[in-house]
Amino acid sequence: MLKPLADRVVLEAQEEEEQTVGGIVLASNAKEKSQTGKVVAVGEGQVLENGQKVPMTVKVGDKVLYDKYAGTEVSYDNQKYLVVHEKDLIAVVD
Amino acid sequence: MLKPLADRVVLEAQEEEEQTVGGIVLASNAKEKSQTGKVVAVGEGQVLENGQKVPMTVKVGDKVLYDKYAGTEVSYDNQKYLVVHEKDLIAVVD
Amino acid sequence: MLKPLADRVVLEAQEEEEQTVGGIVLASNAKEKSQTGKVVAVGEGQVLENGQKVPMTVKVGDKVLYDKYAGTEVSYDNQKYLVVHEKDLIAVVD
Amino acid sequence: MLKPLADRVVLEAQEEEEQTVGGIVLASNAKEKSQTGKVVAVGEGQVLENGQKVPMTVKVGDKVLYDKYAGTEVSYDNQKYLVVHEKDLIAVVD
Amino acid sequence: MLKPLADRVVLEAQEEEEQTVGGIVLASNAKEKSQTGKVVAVGEGQVLENGQKVPMTVKVGDKVLYDKYAGTEVSYDNQKYLVVHEKDLIAVVD
Amino acid sequence: MLKPLADRVVLEAQEEEEQTVGGIVLASNAKEKSQTGKVVAVGEGQVLENGQKVPMTVKVGDKVLYDKYAGTEVSYDNQKYLVVHEKDLIAVVD
Amino acid sequence: MLKPLADRVVLEAQEEEEQTVGGIVLASNAKEKSQTGKVVAVGEGQVLENGQKVPMTVKVGDKVLYDKYAGTEVSYDNQKYLVVHEKDLIAVVD
Repeated sequence: MLKPLADRVVLEAQEEEEQTVGGIVLASNAKEKSQTGKVVAVGEGQVLENGQKVPMTVKVGDKVLYDKYAGTEVSYDNQKYLVVHEKDLIAVVD
Repeated sequence: MLKPLADRVVLEAQEEEEQTVGGIVLASNAKEKSQTGKVVAVGEGQVLENGQKVPMTVKVGDKVLYDKYAGTEVSYDNQKYLVVHEKDLIAVVD
Repeated sequence: MLKPLADRVVLEAQEEEEQTVGGIVLASNAKEKSQTGKVVAVGEGQVLENGQKVPMTVKVGDKVLYDKYAGTEVSYDNQKYLVVHEKDLIAVVD
Repeated sequence: MLKPLADRVVLEAQEEEEQTVGGIVLASNAKEKSQTGKVVAVGEGQVLENGQKVPMTVKVGDKVLYDKYAGTEVSYDNQKYLVVHEKDLIAVVD
Repeated sequence: MLKPLADRVVLEAQEEEEQTVGGIVLASNAKEKSQTGKVVAVGEGQVLENGQKVPMTVKVGDKVLYDKYAGTEVSYDNQKYLVVHEKDLIAVVD
Repeated sequence: MLKPLADRVVLEAQEEEEQTVGGIVLASNAKEKSQTGKVVAVGEGQVLENGQKVPMTVKVGDKVLYDKYAGTEVSYDNQKYLVVHEKDLIAVVD
Repeated sequence: MLKPLADRVVLEAQEEEEQTVGGIVLASNAKEKSQTGKVVAVGEGQVLENGQKVPMTVKVGDKVLYDKYAGTEVSYDNQKYLVVHEKDLIAVVD
């Protein structure tokens, strides 16, 4: 089992094809993009400067939008996961 | 439903045409520009270093001005939204 | 009506011609420049890390000097305004 | 009258000629330089993260040394002033 | 014995071959990568701005994932170790 | 008299020749260098975010080592001084 | 005697030869390197934002590993020392 540390969240990322024309990535505009994933594990939360631990705002099973270029890829049991900091999660999708 | 996290706000952005001459974007001057949007969802607020949560200063339905180049584009139910941090909201338009 | 958020101030900027010779902007020296404006709306003030809100130090009607290159341009009711953070206001002119 | 905001100080700057040879500014060495000015107005002081206002450490009439490249030029009543943050003042000259 | 200071952790890193084609490192994509190691020593924890010491969240013997490019190599008793800050540990692997 | 502000210290710097070969400064290695000076005046100390003033750790007459490239040159009574922040002082030499 | 200020530590550095081939420094890989030294003097500790002084975690006589490129070289009594901040010490070697 993967137990993310501090304010980290383990995500099962949803594959997404980048649109290319002849191999060139097409950036429709300059805005940052988001991507969808499913939360499979959450850390215990960030420690504030006063020693207090901030409770996490997402839970296992949540479908979330996250910043497309955030996170670290992790391989575990022949499956790929993405570990992101909670601050890189944009929204929960109900 | 989209539930933005922390101090984020989901906006329905108002389309705006950039003035171009022969495809070149015309920057009238060096000032930053704002754009208008409607708030469709708000987060629960940012957590301060003392653990306190700051109440959001805008609410669903507010018409707001925001920094033109801020935010992350989000697609949901075949509609595009913009998710921005509260600090990128400039003013409420009454 | 425009209601600026946090520590922002809406200014009616005073137009000022940049001195040019043959279209070249003349920078008399390397110092930063200031410009004059009139305060037309003020926000509720910045929230400190202890949750306290700092009262604004300028009020509607004040004539102020501000950092020439600060702020975001805003159009409202066919008039242009400048929205700046309070920290970009340099002095009140009596 | 000019009333500087926060931790700003209005200075009457003392003109100083830069030594040039054939128009080239001579930098004697890589150290930063200071310049002398007279304090003509002081702000109310900076607000700390705990909401406390720090009293200013200089007063009107003080002759001060300041970082040569700091500050914003301000014109008022046909006279030029320099507005600097208190942190850019180096020393009081008695 | 190696006693790491503050929030540092000494790791026995697991060797990993970078995939190369003709000597060129192959970056499969732009995501950051993680690597696996075993904790052999932990520091006493970081001191917060209020003087409080934060307890470490990993212990000797833990198998951890860490940011591939973090840390400082250390040689001790003819063996190589990696010393990383706790914040560069991504997850504990059970 | 020069009265340095905040956490500043006025030093009488000790002249030191840079070793050159044919006018080229010789950097023996990449380490930062220190230089010796004598403290001639000290400020009242830095104000912390809680409003507390930190007492200075050096006093007039102390011989100190300081970071070679720190500080601002000041001319006073036809003598040159160096004003540095306390944090740029490395050690007191007894 | 050298009395380091704040959270500084005076080290007797252990000389180490960089491996070169024909004068080119050989970087075996991109990791940061550490080096061994002996503590000969310690400062009184860093002052936190609440005014509290953090006790030093190393003492005179400790053999320590430190970040190879940290610190300032100091000459005293015809001997060379290295002064580093405590945060640049990686581990104590028992």
